[in-house]
Amino acid sequence: MSLLRAAELPSLLGGELLGDPDAAFSRLAPLADADADSIAFLAHPRYRAQLDASAAGCVIAAPALREALAGRRAALLHDDPYLAFARLTQWWAARVRPAGVPGVHASAVVEPLARVHASATVGPLAYVGAGAVVGPHAVVGAQAHIGRDAWIGEGTRLMPRATLLDGCRIGARGIVHGGAVIGADGFGFAPDAGAGGAWVKIEQLGAVEIGDEVEIGANTCIDRGALADTVIGDGVKLDNLVQIGHNVRVGAHSAFAGCVGVAGSATIGRFCTAGGGAIILGHLELVDHVHISAATVITRSILKPGSYSGMFPFDDNAAWEKNAATLRQLHALRDRLRALEKRT
Amino acid sequence: MSLLRAAELPSLLGGELLGDPDAAFSRLAPLADADADSIAFLAHPRYRAQLDASAAGCVIAAPALREALAGRRAALLHDDPYLAFARLTQWWAARVRPAGVPGVHASAVVEPLARVHASATVGPLAYVGAGAVVGPHAVVGAQAHIGRDAWIGEGTRLMPRATLLDGCRIGARGIVHGGAVIGADGFGFAPDAGAGGAWVKIEQLGAVEIGDEVEIGANTCIDRGALADTVIGDGVKLDNLVQIGHNVRVGAHSAFAGCVGVAGSATIGRFCTAGGGAIILGHLELVDHVHISAATVITRSILKPGSYSGMFPFDDNAAWEKNAATLRQLHALRDRLRALEKRT
Amino acid sequence: MSLLRAAELPSLLGGELLGDPDAAFSRLAPLADADADSIAFLAHPRYRAQLDASAAGCVIAAPALREALAGRRAALLHDDPYLAFARLTQWWAARVRPAGVPGVHASAVVEPLARVHASATVGPLAYVGAGAVVGPHAVVGAQAHIGRDAWIGEGTRLMPRATLLDGCRIGARGIVHGGAVIGADGFGFAPDAGAGGAWVKIEQLGAVEIGDEVEIGANTCIDRGALADTVIGDGVKLDNLVQIGHNVRVGAHSAFAGCVGVAGSATIGRFCTAGGGAIILGHLELVDHVHISAATVITRSILKPGSYSGMFPFDDNAAWEKNAATLRQLHALRDRLRALEKRT
Repeated sequence: MSLLRAAELPSLLGGELLGDPDAAFSRLAPLADADADSIAFLAHPRYRAQLDASAAGCVIAAPALREALAGRRAALLHDDPYLAFARLTQWWAARVRPAGVPGVHASAVVEPLARVHASATVGPLAYVGAGAVVGPHAVVGAQAHIGRDAWIGEGTRLMPRATLLDGCRIGARGIVHGGAVIGADGFGFAPDAGAGGAWVKIEQLGAVEIGDEVEIGANTCIDRGALADTVIGDGVKLDNLVQIGHNVRVGAHSAFAGCVGVAGSATIGRFCTAGGGAIILGHLELVDHVHISAATVITRSILKPGSYSGMFPFDDNAAWEKNAATLRQLHALRDRLRALEKRT
Repeated sequence: MSLLRAAELPSLLGGELLGDPDAAFSRLAPLADADADSIAFLAHPRYRAQLDASAAGCVIAAPALREALAGRRAALLHDDPYLAFARLTQWWAARVRPAGVPGVHASAVVEPLARVHASATVGPLAYVGAGAVVGPHAVVGAQAHIGRDAWIGEGTRLMPRATLLDGCRIGARGIVHGGAVIGADGFGFAPDAGAGGAWVKIEQLGAVEIGDEVEIGANTCIDRGALADTVIGDGVKLDNLVQIGHNVRVGAHSAFAGCVGVAGSATIGRFCTAGGGAIILGHLELVDHVHISAATVITRSILKPGSYSGMFPFDDNAAWEKNAATLRQLHALRDRLRALEKRT
Repeated sequence: MSLLRAAELPSLLGGELLGDPDAAFSRLAPLADADADSIAFLAHPRYRAQLDASAAGCVIAAPALREALAGRRAALLHDDPYLAFARLTQWWAARVRPAGVPGVHASAVVEPLARVHASATVGPLAYVGAGAVVGPHAVVGAQAHIGRDAWIGEGTRLMPRATLLDGCRIGARGIVHGGAVIGADGFGFAPDAGAGGAWVKIEQLGAVEIGDEVEIGANTCIDRGALADTVIGDGVKLDNLVQIGHNVRVGAHSAFAGCVGVAGSATIGRFCTAGGGAIILGHLELVDHVHISAATVITRSILKPGSYSGMFPFDDNAAWEKNAATLRQLHALRDRLRALEKRT
């Protein structure tokens, strides 16, 4: 069951091997759980204490830790241990996960005018609409849905029960997790004053255009554009339960954590991040390299790269109640302070 | 490929045509992207600068802009350009989208006791339970689910992978987007003191009752009632990833943006709105015409129509940290201010 | 259509019966809607006024209300009326809901190496992967998905369109509601400085391990662990649209309301609760019996049981705007207050 010999590590990941090249390892593990048969990693030398406490047989760590690594069965010195470990998980996953079998499962429904590449996989009970294109080595998981004229690039995987609706496109080497819905209608209605303000639907005539190397989390929604398309750039990573409104544009390599909501027509730059539960309102712009903290609400454009926050600091309930009640008088308190300043 | 002649606009939408009645247009587009073959609209005269910068061949705009529209191939003067454009998108969608084919797809499972109208469509791999009723011209999308004794009104469309569970009902001309789950159990448990506080499930015996002309977004959840039903009024519009708890009542023509959560037994009036990420707690009442800003938390009843807000204003991270830390001492600051006021 | 005779109540629920043992009831109802054929309950004597206003034929209430209950067709005195009513809903549901028929529906796809117990039900268009185990009396709902090597304990029900992905396990007597996705990849990426900061995927090699008596809401997501597993303890209750990140540990009998998000590697104790929309950041610890208010953001560990809050109090829009603007100067106001204090 030994899967990886230490001697293979430098060729797979780069870096310098210490210890026994013939040592073999059967697990990847966090430092705290690792045993003599495990490979672990230390992201940063400041976590040195975790290293000393770990029984890991092999550790990937920074060159500065050369001496601290002595005595392990093996170790890999690497300038970027976290990145090296990420690459190792990919190698590992390719070994332990069964490969998909190319072809269309007998229970899937593929419309006559769809084009599924011979090397692609369409899983059980999946649906592929007319005019859809499923590229080489792409995987349409069990019970997934590809709408009419939708397009899936080379090697992209739709996991079980993912949905890519009519006319939407995703590039190469992407992943769409289960329950994600790409291409539902954007939320657009005009009030009809003649009908007492009832809402009249604005049909959403655009689609969703997604670049290469994009990962989209479980139950995340990306709405189709009203007239033009909603656009997700290359390398974007969206976590679960994220909402992307119609005509949003997300720049390449931006990443949003779970439960983030982005309202319609927001334009997000490249390499931006948003923490869990952040809300970005619509019709505004964030430049590249803007980082939004969790649960922060962005209400206007941000034109300067940097980190932005806005959340009420939690406290024990009694303290919060007092401070929150006072907050509702804050403007009045300021006026009282001004008055005092004038008097003294 | 020309789809619409200018001369048809007044009969479709009302208003007064300017320019060449024989001019033909092949696209609807935002002003900024529009070309000579496009129809665009200007919601309000204050955006006049966008009009001047646009190459749109035809623009729908307010009568006050009559002179500014001179020189276009065509224009439509309309008292409510936004509403007129909404109607135009509906006309357009009806032309460019393939109509569903009535009938039940061979791969769908329709239980013997279900009643599917001859003019309705049941898509591939869809399920329709015993006793369910699918009305005239209704559409059950691919992989959608209609539970036992559920009911879908005339012309209502369940998009691919939408779910309407046992005994739940939706009226006419509605849309339920993919991944929406209508009729899952409400969240009801009683603590069992005799079992150390373990939760005992309260079975949810009610259903969900939805009116006509309702649109429900992707991955939105509406829970069934505990004893009585959860009720969604006519014309309500819910965006994606909205949570509606058990026994909530949402009044007609209210609209909630993405990621809104409404806790159990809240009663919302008519023509209310809630911005993205707003939370409305349970067992409270909002009267008609209450408008809640994004990310605002409603903790008590609102008995007066109007606009309500409550979110921490974002700032650059360093400024936020200082202000947030001070906020935790706000009540004490008030006391110090009072003390000063007494002294001076 | 009379379903329950009063005489049966004490043996089903405990407590003391008042009134006519032969009175029969056909409905469970809230006090306000109840009629002479209904059984209702009063959670607490302080709601006495609701009791007096109710036409309920039978009421379950505390012994202290013995006299107030006189004159009803029947009543049950019980030390914990809420718990008794919860148990009654279970009895009722078992009578009124059709039982599943054991066996595998002809339209389901069950891989050859899956093991489905003879007493289990696999519904229409469901999928059960190779190596998966479906226990005795378990139910796999229509269009649900059980991945390769996944495991469902005795009597657990996956509702229509629920998803339990490869290698994930859930214990006995659980419920997973529609659209829930258990076992999608956690959100883990390492930035590749050599590629300009593009994100490199960390394959998620762990799974999700769920205890007994767990209920998981519609469209809720629980991510698989990166290396070790994500763990949900016995008796945990998660409402709809909840996000649980990779390697989170939730202690037994904790309960989270709708739209809660818990970031990766958070460790939550036993008997904790979180209100709707609360966010718990990652890599922190909550001890047992911590209660988080709705929409509160937990940014650091909580080592003391109790109730914690942090939300901006809502106000009418104009008042909020003034106070929020002043909040952005709060630290400066404190400095001004200090200066005044020194002067006076």
